[in-house]
Amino acid sequence: MTALILRRLADLRAKHATWIRTGEVVGVVPTMGALHAGHLSLVEAAKAACDRVIVTIFVNPKQFNSAEDLAKYPRTEEADAKKLAPYGVDAIYVPEPDQIYPDGYATSVSVEGITDELEGTFRPGHFDGVATVVAKLFLQTGAHKAFFGEKDFQQLMVVRRMARDLDIPIEVIGCPTVREASGLAMSSRNMRLSAEALEKAGQLYPIMTDCAARLAAGEAFEQIEAEARAALQAAGFGEVEYLDLRCAEMLAPLQRPTRPSRLLAAVWLNDVRLIDNIPVPELSD
Amino acid sequence: MTALILRRLADLRAKHATWIRTGEVVGVVPTMGALHAGHLSLVEAAKAACDRVIVTIFVNPKQFNSAEDLAKYPRTEEADAKKLAPYGVDAIYVPEPDQIYPDGYATSVSVEGITDELEGTFRPGHFDGVATVVAKLFLQTGAHKAFFGEKDFQQLMVVRRMARDLDIPIEVIGCPTVREASGLAMSSRNMRLSAEALEKAGQLYPIMTDCAARLAAGEAFEQIEAEARAALQAAGFGEVEYLDLRCAEMLAPLQRPTRPSRLLAAVWLNDVRLIDNIPVPELSD
Repeated sequence: MTALILRRLADLRAKHATWIRTGEVVGVVPTMGALHAGHLSLVEAAKAACDRVIVTIFVNPKQFNSAEDLAKYPRTEEADAKKLAPYGVDAIYVPEPDQIYPDGYATSVSVEGITDELEGTFRPGHFDGVATVVAKLFLQTGAHKAFFGEKDFQQLMVVRRMARDLDIPIEVIGCPTVREASGLAMSSRNMRLSAEALEKAGQLYPIMTDCAARLAAGEAFEQIEAEARAALQAAGFGEVEYLDLRCAEMLAPLQRPTRPSRLLAAVWLNDVRLIDNIPVPELSD
Repeated sequence: MTALILRRLADLRAKHATWIRTGEVVGVVPTMGALHAGHLSLVEAAKAACDRVIVTIFVNPKQFNSAEDLAKYPRTEEADAKKLAPYGVDAIYVPEPDQIYPDGYATSVSVEGITDELEGTFRPGHFDGVATVVAKLFLQTGAHKAFFGEKDFQQLMVVRRMARDLDIPIEVIGCPTVREASGLAMSSRNMRLSAEALEKAGQLYPIMTDCAARLAAGEAFEQIEAEARAALQAAGFGEVEYLDLRCAEMLAPLQRPTRPSRLLAAVWLNDVRLIDNIPVPELSD
């Protein structure tokens, strides 16, 4: 059965009130639609941990860096609702734009520090847009638990920090990245890749896992970086915006995985920007 | 009976949970302590409208523009608790600093537009500090209603806008300014005035009400501004940071009160900065 689609905050709040009265645990999976297996794994995790699950679909203009990228972002609401049908979610919240940013809207939420790195460098203002809309979605849904993919690792950290800092009573849960058979991380942006480009894109993950293995074997990042970048060029990728070893706690740059750490990358393929990250096994002393 | 003083968020939340279970309406009066009759009028309003009332006392470093002003701000917790005793509030929340800004704290809330005017011009960053701490206090207390004085009129507007924009489910209620017999608006900063200075300070309100009467009689603001400023100088005030007629909705400058409007002022007296504002009767066509 297709889940109830709600487009207005008042309707969502009315639904929420009936759940809260009976003490049910509410989970939310915030998405921008164009759902794929990665999102569906979050829905599954939410269903397992919560009595009620809300999936939100909102393409948030404030987190896009260009009108062109925003316009290109896929909108597939009907297909999304069909994909969610087997999961029995309790509501799909697809707010009309004025339910998120009404006339006179003037407030923004910023997280300092971790937003200056990596994505923050290449997408100025992006994380302010994310932190703001996610704070609103947390407060609109009144959820107890929220589910985010580790694929947007830095986003997960920003959202978790924001919720903790603002005392929003919600638990932010990160779920493992879901991948294509090739290893390519699922992403709504993959829809914009041709079959040929998809094949090239499949090279990103093996190049990254190779780096991670060498780091885990004790090589320093500076020893492998040039080779890894050359491998990406050879595989047909365009600009490599970053390829970095970072601590998994505060995203501080590392040469060796002496702490819990992640290898993170942003690369262009034709006119599509791909990001990925993987954990790197910690070096024992 | 002196009310329960809570210093940790976990204790506040535990208390709150018992109230929510029985469907009680919770009100909050956020203060920086140094309570006077103005604050107590907010407590009275909260008691009348809510089943449970929390008074918060937190001198928020993020909203001060100088370390000196922060250091000078009066701390009078014991006297505050005594003043609250007759009102039977349910909790006084005096959070330890790490309950508001724990290690690694990195998030701020900003309201655009109305914060650029008046106080925003003279106290850069002040309203970000206010919006951030108030968002946190709203979410920490989980209150349904919050009570603020109209004396800080622009702050009231900022807080209301912030709560609405972030979808915090709270009603922000503005209460009339409480004044000394002279007309001087109650303020914790008045404690820093000598008896002689207090007498001078009492001139601010009559000068402002005289302006308001002339505006209500049809004179344009530019016709009375110079005279009003001269009257302030003659009364012994120092720098007049602003004396302005503004619309009460968005604080846009006005020459005549053709809409709901307020006359707002910030003036120095010795080393103390005083602010005040009064409604101006609307001109009929």
